[in-house]
Amino acid sequence: MKVAVVGATGAVGTVMLELLEKRKFPVQDLKVFATARSQGRKLRCQGREWTVEVLKPGCFEGVDIAFFDASDAVSKDWALQAAEAGAWVVDNSATYRMEKDVPLVVPEVNGHKLRRLVQIGRANLHARERIVAGPNCSTIQLVVALKPIAEHWGLKRVVVSSYQSVSGAGSAAMDELTALSKEVLGGTTPRELKSKVLKYPIAFNCIPQIGGFMSGTGGEAEGATSEEYKIITESRKILGLPELKITATAVRVPTYACHAESVNIECEKPFELDALKKTLADFPGIVLEDSPQDFRYPMGIYAHAREAVYVGRIRRDFSLQNGDNGLNCWVVSDNLWKGAALNAIQIGEVLTRQES
Amino acid sequence: MKVAVVGATGAVGTVMLELLEKRKFPVQDLKVFATARSQGRKLRCQGREWTVEVLKPGCFEGVDIAFFDASDAVSKDWALQAAEAGAWVVDNSATYRMEKDVPLVVPEVNGHKLRRLVQIGRANLHARERIVAGPNCSTIQLVVALKPIAEHWGLKRVVVSSYQSVSGAGSAAMDELTALSKEVLGGTTPRELKSKVLKYPIAFNCIPQIGGFMSGTGGEAEGATSEEYKIITESRKILGLPELKITATAVRVPTYACHAESVNIECEKPFELDALKKTLADFPGIVLEDSPQDFRYPMGIYAHAREAVYVGRIRRDFSLQNGDNGLNCWVVSDNLWKGAALNAIQIGEVLTRQES
Repeated sequence: MKVAVVGATGAVGTVMLELLEKRKFPVQDLKVFATARSQGRKLRCQGREWTVEVLKPGCFEGVDIAFFDASDAVSKDWALQAAEAGAWVVDNSATYRMEKDVPLVVPEVNGHKLRRLVQIGRANLHARERIVAGPNCSTIQLVVALKPIAEHWGLKRVVVSSYQSVSGAGSAAMDELTALSKEVLGGTTPRELKSKVLKYPIAFNCIPQIGGFMSGTGGEAEGATSEEYKIITESRKILGLPELKITATAVRVPTYACHAESVNIECEKPFELDALKKTLADFPGIVLEDSPQDFRYPMGIYAHAREAVYVGRIRRDFSLQNGDNGLNCWVVSDNLWKGAALNAIQIGEVLTRQES
Repeated sequence: MKVAVVGATGAVGTVMLELLEKRKFPVQDLKVFATARSQGRKLRCQGREWTVEVLKPGCFEGVDIAFFDASDAVSKDWALQAAEAGAWVVDNSATYRMEKDVPLVVPEVNGHKLRRLVQIGRANLHARERIVAGPNCSTIQLVVALKPIAEHWGLKRVVVSSYQSVSGAGSAAMDELTALSKEVLGGTTPRELKSKVLKYPIAFNCIPQIGGFMSGTGGEAEGATSEEYKIITESRKILGLPELKITATAVRVPTYACHAESVNIECEKPFELDALKKTLADFPGIVLEDSPQDFRYPMGIYAHAREAVYVGRIRRDFSLQNGDNGLNCWVVSDNLWKGAALNAIQIGEVLTRQES
């Protein structure tokens, strides 16, 4: 297959090339796109070197599948062009996610959206129908954990608090965490630090803002950040539960890899804790790490560069009137892997299985 | 007044001496106690030097007020002895917190418990009645934020996720964060780190365990950590709401100072958002930092070494059936200050006001 990766030198793009190789994606030809600053750079993938190009009209000619891992603006300008050139487009930006006619997909959760497209066949679809959106990183790991619970016990209400790594803000934010951490370890008082990439210094600090504020928009978005609102709206779309009661607080923490989420769930129906754990463990994409007696629970430094969504700290929440329906858990996954690149490649694998 | 500080060289004890000076506590004589390792060390407070002693029988003779900032075991062995010698005892350990006859106090929230003792008078109380317990750090900032809401709108249910700094685990944990962070910045992969003080490496990691697991204890504690259970039970006692519906997930994050909490609150009654913010801002001990348009919200690096409990990110939670009763907020405070030493000194100030 002729594959294109847009944003190939970024944090997600780098993992994308790594995973195209690791998962033996059938790459015959690879086009790697980035900004002019990286033009001419050589990137390795599947034992070969590929030269970074800049996007230009006609650059998607003959491409079978294009992965977009750049900004919303780049996807807005170029994703449809790639689709018009005949390619499948897997877009990891926010541009198309909430468009009614574009599927927003996590294969384990709503893979049937992809199978429908495959059945119709790439050549028989309109250009725009060849676009599939990949969700926001913090949404993906959440819906993977929620889906088996929703199926078996129903979701009455979900309260999420996130612990998100700087890699979600790109490699510049990772470099800033390093630089500012070194300053503090060198003697600078944290409150004297100055940040350039993130709004405030992230070294040894937690910042309760990811994305911009949506104040003045009214309704459910009022007072939320864009990240929090994405968690709410994207989860509903992917789970196919447009009325799902869900609220989120998204927080940046000084970690490099993986997002963690403290998730409080009220189910429609009472559950047996062991049955619930088994259902989670059996769900594709989930690894259950839940053994307090061995001090086993998910943590970012161990989930880094792993494919799974790790779920643990599963216990009843006795604060509900009906204690048998309440649940707390802790969900960790690598936001650059399952939260972005891996999820996109999994989408690509389903879309192209019969073509390659 | 003759004052004693037990655990004077520890993380909390150090702040205690700093605050006795800063708040001009009427210290005439100061006895500073620590383990044999620190015996003979000189500590400065209020312009004078005090020599570290070890605890021994009779060491509280003549002491008017003793602050215990050491382990549960030390308080168990010595706090009652100090009270029997005639001193007020402010115990920051967990030893007496849940004892029915010992007040657990955050002055802004339930200061009337202290005024009752003062009214009776130190000399008229039995030894054990001279003991006042200070709550767990993560509980203190939570109940300060919850109290004005409870008073005006009632608390139907509270869901807390914490972001707790390593200073809550003492100075050895702070040193470990420094040492392990340096290792990572020097090139070590985080998953290769080894920890000695905390259960797992905390550098660039979040650990969803604080305290031991309470598995096998049954009931509400099942599956919770001791920290989570403290938040639940101590909040109920301090707020005087023994039936309060509350659940907590406690997480250690790689910060040195301050605990943060993402708090989801369901009120009994509907509220106006502006009225709620004003009520919080007017409550003693709270500083409202809530201005999304200016990117103002509480953060640990700025709340460090400050007295207040900072509250922000206040917004409606639309996930409740009755959207007018739901609330999300973000609460930050220095766990060594209001979360420990400052709260104890504030208790001491009320107890001794008429004596000094």
